[in-house]
Amino acid sequence: MEWASLLKLRRSIRSFQDRPVPLNLIQDLLEESRLAPSAYNQQPWHFLLLQDQGLIRRISDDCKTNALAHLAENPGSPLCMDVDDLRDPQHQIFHQAPLVVLVAGPDSWPFLDVDSALWASYFMFAAVARNLGACWIGLGKWLQDPALLKEIRLPQGFRISVPLAVGYPIAIPEPKPRAQPRILAVK
Amino acid sequence: MEWASLLKLRRSIRSFQDRPVPLNLIQDLLEESRLAPSAYNQQPWHFLLLQDQGLIRRISDDCKTNALAHLAENPGSPLCMDVDDLRDPQHQIFHQAPLVVLVAGPDSWPFLDVDSALWASYFMFAAVARNLGACWIGLGKWLQDPALLKEIRLPQGFRISVPLAVGYPIAIPEPKPRAQPRILAVK
Repeated sequence: MEWASLLKLRRSIRSFQDRPVPLNLIQDLLEESRLAPSAYNQQPWHFLLLQDQGLIRRISDDCKTNALAHLAENPGSPLCMDVDDLRDPQHQIFHQAPLVVLVAGPDSWPFLDVDSALWASYFMFAAVARNLGACWIGLGKWLQDPALLKEIRLPQGFRISVPLAVGYPIAIPEPKPRAQPRILAVK
Repeated sequence: MEWASLLKLRRSIRSFQDRPVPLNLIQDLLEESRLAPSAYNQQPWHFLLLQDQGLIRRISDDCKTNALAHLAENPGSPLCMDVDDLRDPQHQIFHQAPLVVLVAGPDSWPFLDVDSALWASYFMFAAVARNLGACWIGLGKWLQDPALLKEIRLPQGFRISVPLAVGYPIAIPEPKPRAQPRILAVK
């Protein structure tokens, strides 16, 4: 797929077809996204691949509970923009995606978030090149229930850096408005 | 350019031709990279475009001084991997790139680093699609000299999130080794 098409078709997808993502396709995406740069080439990223919709729902519920608790104590948090979804018992933060990818790595690595974000952009473009879609689900970092963390086998000392919902899009939405580039100085 | 070529040609470039990057090309890159996703679509990124090699050298020197001071107090810091370069008076952290792009945004925005990393991946692919190359220069975040920060017009309350060296590559290096994807669980 051409860069111009990747740019046009890479959108945050929140509405997925009821169609599984084959595991061999995921393997291809993981293969390609290994080429992302990372600080000191440390590649801190590890993956949890979730397709069990019951498990995904329980993770979603735990994230909502913890995010709401955080918001109650920090009313100025950006999470206030999610409050209606968080209070809606029907809302599932991963948007019923057939696949949830949780990226995790050592909490001690200072570049974990940035390295994972670079990885995620590779993964999302690799997905688009195969007609898949994805959405970064910031709320997915609020998973805290020890039983769930054990169930998904998150190692001690690791934390989730990027949660992604992945699947075949029902439609490719138009981009949300973007500001003109803000150039502070040319020197 | 095709995704497969972008994947192959997007490498961290540390050796540049002595050839300027036209400003209208930079404008195209900024235009395309606006399409990167960001948390709550806040697009916190702002840009400083530096071509003055004297200024770039002074920034490099300040970053090296500050990084070495940090390393002296934190010998276990990942910066220890840069120590030879940091101590070499001839080393310029931006690798004599004809263009340095500093991405900056509000320090108060909790997603500044991650949003900027997503932006940077777009920018780097957009650069590759035009036969340019780039390298994320982590050391460029160590700029602290108030006079230099004033000279580049960094607004109060902003900080540099991503420094990039940009230019025409002398050659496209082979990728550094990558680990096989580490899948912790499939559920």
